[in-house]
Amino acid sequence: MTKQQLAERIAEVSLLKGEFTLRSGRKSHYYLDKYLFSTQPDVLVELGKLFAERVGDQVNKLAGAELGGIPLVTAASLASGLPCIFIRNQKKDYGTAKQLEGKLGEGDVVMLVEDVCTTGGQVLEAAKVIEATGAKVAKIVGTIDREEGARENIEGAGYVFEALFTKTDLGV
Amino acid sequence: MTKQQLAERIAEVSLLKGEFTLRSGRKSHYYLDKYLFSTQPDVLVELGKLFAERVGDQVNKLAGAELGGIPLVTAASLASGLPCIFIRNQKKDYGTAKQLEGKLGEGDVVMLVEDVCTTGGQVLEAAKVIEATGAKVAKIVGTIDREEGARENIEGAGYVFEALFTKTDLGV
Repeated sequence: MTKQQLAERIAEVSLLKGEFTLRSGRKSHYYLDKYLFSTQPDVLVELGKLFAERVGDQVNKLAGAELGGIPLVTAASLASGLPCIFIRNQKKDYGTAKQLEGKLGEGDVVMLVEDVCTTGGQVLEAAKVIEATGAKVAKIVGTIDREEGARENIEGAGYVFEALFTKTDLGV
Repeated sequence: MTKQQLAERIAEVSLLKGEFTLRSGRKSHYYLDKYLFSTQPDVLVELGKLFAERVGDQVNKLAGAELGGIPLVTAASLASGLPCIFIRNQKKDYGTAKQLEGKLGEGDVVMLVEDVCTTGGQVLEAAKVIEATGAKVAKIVGTIDREEGARENIEGAGYVFEALFTKTDLGV
């Protein structure tokens, strides 16, 4: 599958055009259900390869945040052969619940993968959880950049940001 | 990797022997951190193949429950080529939050994969979420059966239960 074919396949299975109100209250002229592409093995296998191509020399572990990042980081781990880490959402009501699953610590260099990047808020929280262990975040790679501030916010926080696709690639 | 070698590798990365108090309050002479094997790609790829071998003729979708089931169902989906479904834990505080991600409905026949089966309670809840869509659960396949009631409870609820490994296979 070429990258263009993959973009078309992602749009085919997960993109709805129309008028939508997002959870944040903002209006959008499209809606992307990330789980409709991340539950399709033909898409997952290709995304895994694209993430693996971006690993570089220093990265020794991959990370993804629940829930949407978990299938993606799993596919990337299988494609690259690098172990992975799962980051849980902050559980306000549990306080000290474990936020990180897998082995991570000082000396580890992580590529953090994300599903859909809007403002980048969730992935920046995940980066903090990684750094709290003493590990470094080499880069943050989103599957789809909605081009609504994620790059500015992530780069502004001092991280390298890449995206496999932008919303423009998907035809919106 | 043979099945025996895989069992040894799972034990090597994720099994601790000693005296432990489980979350339920019960004592155990071993502790199995399921994320220590499900974050290792050499283990994941082999588990994916073993799940794929158990699919059978009728199953057209795979399902796994968060968080532990997600990397496993992703690996199984990649190995089998069948699309998957992610089931969220019940969120008591959200009430109507979406409990199922991906596409599922009447006519679908599901193999539900689970990480470690203790009493089977979590996987039985996930089975109910699947059936509420009109889909059928053809079988429930655990990665590791701790042999503490899961089989009795799952079969008692009318489901077919299989396990890739038992705790005995792991040497405990």
